[in-house]
Amino acid sequence: MGVFGGVEAGGTKFVCGIGTGPDDLRLGWFPTSSPEATIASVAAFFCEQSGASVDAVGIGSFGPVDLDPASHTFGYITSTPKLEWQYYDLAGVLGRALNVPAGFDTDVNAAALGEARWGAARGISDFLYLTVGTGIGGGAVVHGEVVHGLVHPEMGHIRVPHDLAKDPYPGGCPYHQDCLEGLASGPTMEARWGVPARDLPVEHPGWELEARYLAFGLATWVCTLSPKRIVMGGGVMQQQHLFPMVRRELARVLNGYIRAAALMDEMEQYVVPPQLGNRAGVLGAIALAERAHRSSLSTAVVPGGSI
Amino acid sequence: MGVFGGVEAGGTKFVCGIGTGPDDLRLGWFPTSSPEATIASVAAFFCEQSGASVDAVGIGSFGPVDLDPASHTFGYITSTPKLEWQYYDLAGVLGRALNVPAGFDTDVNAAALGEARWGAARGISDFLYLTVGTGIGGGAVVHGEVVHGLVHPEMGHIRVPHDLAKDPYPGGCPYHQDCLEGLASGPTMEARWGVPARDLPVEHPGWELEARYLAFGLATWVCTLSPKRIVMGGGVMQQQHLFPMVRRELARVLNGYIRAAALMDEMEQYVVPPQLGNRAGVLGAIALAERAHRSSLSTAVVPGGSI
Repeated sequence: MGVFGGVEAGGTKFVCGIGTGPDDLRLGWFPTSSPEATIASVAAFFCEQSGASVDAVGIGSFGPVDLDPASHTFGYITSTPKLEWQYYDLAGVLGRALNVPAGFDTDVNAAALGEARWGAARGISDFLYLTVGTGIGGGAVVHGEVVHGLVHPEMGHIRVPHDLAKDPYPGGCPYHQDCLEGLASGPTMEARWGVPARDLPVEHPGWELEARYLAFGLATWVCTLSPKRIVMGGGVMQQQHLFPMVRRELARVLNGYIRAAALMDEMEQYVVPPQLGNRAGVLGAIALAERAHRSSLSTAVVPGGSI
Repeated sequence: MGVFGGVEAGGTKFVCGIGTGPDDLRLGWFPTSSPEATIASVAAFFCEQSGASVDAVGIGSFGPVDLDPASHTFGYITSTPKLEWQYYDLAGVLGRALNVPAGFDTDVNAAALGEARWGAARGISDFLYLTVGTGIGGGAVVHGEVVHGLVHPEMGHIRVPHDLAKDPYPGGCPYHQDCLEGLASGPTMEARWGVPARDLPVEHPGWELEARYLAFGLATWVCTLSPKRIVMGGGVMQQQHLFPMVRRELARVLNGYIRAAALMDEMEQYVVPPQLGNRAGVLGAIALAERAHRSSLSTAVVPGGSI
């Protein structure tokens, strides 16, 4: 059993964790500054915490990222608007800095892996992890492996019905205006109602609208991926009263078409909160490190993804 | 190398094929009548054509179907409105009638498998096969395996933006009204314009609308599954002029957000017609038979899905 380092690389902060799972996890975090300074802080954290070195590192990163092991920019953050980080070899640099194998995936895929390994999706081969916060993102596990495909999913950017008569807010996505993220992310709730989502009273009609949009998204993914469970995390989903509303709206949108107990009487076990809270990403990164460690005999940088 | 039988079980006809692939395929078909009469016709066809018996049979069936190998109704057609076929053990009965192993999947998953094995998706581990005809259905292959999940995907029933000012047609889906199938299947084109889709002139604005709705669907699946290719078949897609329109609309809906050559300069290789035409389903069923044959040492009825 090795000592593994996990990094949740975000646009505003890097969260680092060391340990073998939730029980012995030690955490630290650093604001995202220049790549050089940030990587130095991460390396110093792992050195101090491990006493010497970790056996492998895993990274769940903000994106877009290159997950294609055959690409010459595998492990890079690619076309981000954050100029200093554009086409930055995050997995390569960090792996070399620590002199260990590096596993790599998106931030939301890492969170899905964390929940699959230690959380609300343990033992489930096909599920969806969704985060609803500053943005909306989804990590899908199919046949026990995270979906990558051509690039990686960008689930928040699906289109959903938008009734301008009932919701005149035009949408806030700079690329698609009223895609799901443009209608239902945390910041769009604040833009629409004038107060942060967390300050919106439980009885405010904004929550009904939010549940409706999220249910359109969930119904789309139920029809496309047929997940066995949906885990919903992120800042907006910390409002626990949203869960029963989303479940009810999902049943309404699907309208009994797909006959499965999970989608009818057992909806409470179908759409669930995460069990790892905001540690899902960094724990998933540790799972990526573990996998990189196992694969390290054949290659120094390996694709993430399996649970 | 064995002799394999494939059955594309549809609501109006059963198409049967025997052979090892497209080059030696021999076809027959029977109208869908009672289960007993239909199964008898299928069994007689395979007996005559093989001279004795096939080594295994594969079935791509209309649905919904039960694909869960752990279920006691695995291999059944389940809650179909066709009363005689409700909860009918199609894979079990046909396998026993022919006394051979039976592979089983949905009709659209079988077509996806056919295109994966011999057609437009050869060698591609992650792709989407879409059929646009009487209904709309999708078969997704992820990590080289067909997606089943909780039940199986029902891709035609995703919701898409519907601007009633521009398209006052309310939608034709009895469950969801204006889901994608309710707005863009062949019959909805006829309901909207008064003539069958095939008789609509190439310059008719109905084709722009059709391309728009289909592109909303494709964009949703690109954001969710990140397929490496999309193969579009079915009666409506026999209108070849739809392909450039759908590609252009897909690029417009995605609006450059996902940076991948396939979605920009190489769209012509990304959204493509099938190569097996209307034989994709029955050839995919033969691929299911092959797989059942390989697995037959351990069990007589095996789940389909791998390519």
